[in-house]
Amino acid sequence: MKAGHVNEVPVEPVEMKGAEGVYIQWLIKKDDGAKNYAMRRFILKPGAKIPRHMHEWEHEIFVLSGKGKVGAGEEEVEVGPGSFLYIEPDIPHWYENTGDEDWVFLCIIPYL
Amino acid sequence: MKAGHVNEVPVEPVEMKGAEGVYIQWLIKKDDGAKNYAMRRFILKPGAKIPRHMHEWEHEIFVLSGKGKVGAGEEEVEVGPGSFLYIEPDIPHWYENTGDEDWVFLCIIPYL
Repeated sequence: MKAGHVNEVPVEPVEMKGAEGVYIQWLIKKDDGAKNYAMRRFILKPGAKIPRHMHEWEHEIFVLSGKGKVGAGEEEVEVGPGSFLYIEPDIPHWYENTGDEDWVFLCIIPYL
Repeated sequence: MKAGHVNEVPVEPVEMKGAEGVYIQWLIKKDDGAKNYAMRRFILKPGAKIPRHMHEWEHEIFVLSGKGKVGAGEEEVEVGPGSFLYIEPDIPHWYENTGDEDWVFLCIIPYL
């Protein structure tokens, strides 16, 4: 078993053009023994965005706090604490913090 | 994209001897398109336990609220909001709500 707490995990800036104010914590990953999927925690500062992008892996997302807008393909949804999302592989998607506090969510991705 | 909220998802009792007061919500699952892993939300009422058991799939857990004790193999840890856990496949593990409010956590399992 590996146990930890978010307060102990490094908070790293996400290196992506247009993604200023976006941070990531890798909570559970391959070198913890997790061979099928990784658990990450994202923090978007008020106004921060993750621009439209796509990749071949899916997302499973759970919103912990704050609020934001998530777009995928032709859809856009507003989410808040307790919201969850499944975003298919190979679909363009984007994020924006639309509130006045940090928007924090978990995002699980597969190791393909 | 599939979007939802925990308030909209059925809360089902966990059918397991000794697991009275344990409930599960399947947030993201195979019939939503998720083919690699499922996201579930567990609710353990105060005093509720999930007895020692094992299986061939791992767990990735994130504690949302409340507090509890998780055992796996020879280890036991106390967890609370913001705690996360990786529990290896094929290791005996168990859970107990040690607080006076509901203990709520996410638990992601692979589709093997």
